[in-house]
Amino acid sequence: MALLVCKFGGSSVASIDKIKNVALRLKDMQSQGNELVVVVSAMGDTTDELLELAGAISDRNSAREMDMLLATGEQQSAALLALTLNNMKCPAISLSGWQAGIKTDGIHSKARITGIKPERIHNDLALGSIVVIAGFQGLSPEQNITTLGRGGSDTTAVALAAALGADRCLIFTDVNGVYTADPRIVQDARKIDRISYEEMLEMASLGAGVLQPRAAEFAMHYNVDVEVLNTFNHQSGTIITEVGKMEKQRIVSGIAHDFNVARIALFDVPDQPGVAMTIFKVLAESKINVDMVIQGGMRSNRNDIAFTIERDELDKALPLVNEVVAKIGASGMSYGQDVAKVSIVGAGMQSNPGVAAAMFEALADAEINIHMISTSEIKVSCIIDEDEVNKAVQALHAKFRLSEVE
Amino acid sequence: MALLVCKFGGSSVASIDKIKNVALRLKDMQSQGNELVVVVSAMGDTTDELLELAGAISDRNSAREMDMLLATGEQQSAALLALTLNNMKCPAISLSGWQAGIKTDGIHSKARITGIKPERIHNDLALGSIVVIAGFQGLSPEQNITTLGRGGSDTTAVALAAALGADRCLIFTDVNGVYTADPRIVQDARKIDRISYEEMLEMASLGAGVLQPRAAEFAMHYNVDVEVLNTFNHQSGTIITEVGKMEKQRIVSGIAHDFNVARIALFDVPDQPGVAMTIFKVLAESKINVDMVIQGGMRSNRNDIAFTIERDELDKALPLVNEVVAKIGASGMSYGQDVAKVSIVGAGMQSNPGVAAAMFEALADAEINIHMISTSEIKVSCIIDEDEVNKAVQALHAKFRLSEVE
Repeated sequence: MALLVCKFGGSSVASIDKIKNVALRLKDMQSQGNELVVVVSAMGDTTDELLELAGAISDRNSAREMDMLLATGEQQSAALLALTLNNMKCPAISLSGWQAGIKTDGIHSKARITGIKPERIHNDLALGSIVVIAGFQGLSPEQNITTLGRGGSDTTAVALAAALGADRCLIFTDVNGVYTADPRIVQDARKIDRISYEEMLEMASLGAGVLQPRAAEFAMHYNVDVEVLNTFNHQSGTIITEVGKMEKQRIVSGIAHDFNVARIALFDVPDQPGVAMTIFKVLAESKINVDMVIQGGMRSNRNDIAFTIERDELDKALPLVNEVVAKIGASGMSYGQDVAKVSIVGAGMQSNPGVAAAMFEALADAEINIHMISTSEIKVSCIIDEDEVNKAVQALHAKFRLSEVE
Repeated sequence: MALLVCKFGGSSVASIDKIKNVALRLKDMQSQGNELVVVVSAMGDTTDELLELAGAISDRNSAREMDMLLATGEQQSAALLALTLNNMKCPAISLSGWQAGIKTDGIHSKARITGIKPERIHNDLALGSIVVIAGFQGLSPEQNITTLGRGGSDTTAVALAAALGADRCLIFTDVNGVYTADPRIVQDARKIDRISYEEMLEMASLGAGVLQPRAAEFAMHYNVDVEVLNTFNHQSGTIITEVGKMEKQRIVSGIAHDFNVARIALFDVPDQPGVAMTIFKVLAESKINVDMVIQGGMRSNRNDIAFTIERDELDKALPLVNEVVAKIGASGMSYGQDVAKVSIVGAGMQSNPGVAAAMFEALADAEINIHMISTSEIKVSCIIDEDEVNKAVQALHAKFRLSEVE
């Protein structure tokens, strides 16, 4: 008998009919002898509707009260799924985050899980129930309801799998798994059967949106086997696991791309120690993440600095950057939303020099200009023009022969 | 400085604009030096929408899961009101039932409040916050979310007022208070300034729907001063208090009427000990409340029995009654929804004989036939034909000169 934690996202529970589909699938899994803990997101549009109501009050609302409001969405879908299971003669009970013993810190709207007291879940499982838990939420030390922020339900599921010692965490979504590249761009993109935590984390951070980066981090940290699979068919998905459990290590596992990129450049920054850091300190204080940085030392005493941030942070960043430009005496700045990032990811890269060179070669052969480059042990990312992303992903997929079966 | 508990029903918080209206009123009350605890129902249609979702699953749903689902409605309106207050620079915090320390028994969908731990509310009040509490809900000993059933938010408010030792419990609604009769029927019906708990309880039970009977009971038991008043104007309402605090006692305070009545008659019931009780035992086991009963002893050895129940319980009652008719050997039965109840209520009745006679006289003068009568110390109720209710209420209002100022 296996203990499985299953997570269903908002599109999987968007209507009563879809909830019935989920319930049938769970009933089937239970009849195969599995114990089931289920984590659900809010139904399709619920969160957006609640945000709209709050937006009619103000666009700067208290995070504590927003959490109180938004957490109801997942409680509703959990109750509706439990009702549906009960109606199929399948014992089930819904639990809110606090009832499931999910403890978080007190950072409202992006709380982090600090611990889980799984006693109640174990008790309800022992009674033969499917335990349906509202994702995305927990309880702060001050006994306030918190939400985990974007993709929080994935994190809830992985954290529960870790706390319960589950055999596997199944993330049900609307795609078949993790692909070697976006199938909408690369026709012969192949579903990856197994991928390491490290690779998944890079893929997730780089925009392959099937699993939230924080959830991938949690899975790696607690060594939870995760499978990403499709709610709407019965194909096997992609298993995310430790490198040691993988049969074979490809040099490059997949190509990721991300349009959520904006570039900012500062011209003629005085070349004095610490000055360049001013801009990054100001952005960090506003929680704006700087991704890539290049500093060109073309002239003797002045420098240009260019960097990228997430595109949806641009409005927040621009006034800060303008202030800094004035303060440090740079000659000006420019920015643009016309760039994107393409990346190759693969755990095998570490022991195979020349992979980055092969990437640059492929892009050069496709006549694609590279603006910035960053590397880690298992990925190489390039900033290129946004309108060349499709061509770049196709070229890289072909170059590393990712359509060939492992 | 007074501590006030204010309750706003679903129609008072049906939209963000209405919530803003409520928030302005609260801010005003706070600026007059009052400490405020606020109880809210779910926004206008929320509960119906959730019931519709659940209805698409089954019409016989688990009460535990329904409570989990429905309790989200009040949590949402509490959060939205707190957000609105915050946005007006008025410190406020929303609490769910369990966060507010409201303990209930485990009878889902009609739980009873068993106790309140008000520590958190006191703490938040001490911080200068308006404390907004989700009505209609609590926590069972098994740590499950419960709902209190119909009118539960009124009961939440009165129970909180008792537990907090509040100076007054204000029930904001969409009418100006309790009237001597329904103003839609009696043009010169007068708003009652003060009414005793006992009278209010009779009025409430008899269909004057401004305060739920259970809330009136709670108020009487814990001696909480309640004021029923209008959300949408600033007139003073009706104060419900103990008889001793009333300046003057009228013999008859008001006329109530109730259309939620159905009649059932059994013919030729064998006149043996215990037989008549069979029918009432069966109905009681199904939680169907029998109101009035008459047993006519016209013949030597057989009896007719007629009684009334709530009209919306008729469908549930009829199969049970038919079974009993067959079992006890009655000759048949009939039923009807064409009757209603009119009542006179007044604490002064106890010491004034002849009040019932005056009532019967008024109805006779209006040529209205009385089918059944029941009395208590402070009320007399008559079952009459439904289509004569308006005429009866007008006749009684005139007879007892209720339009005259106290």
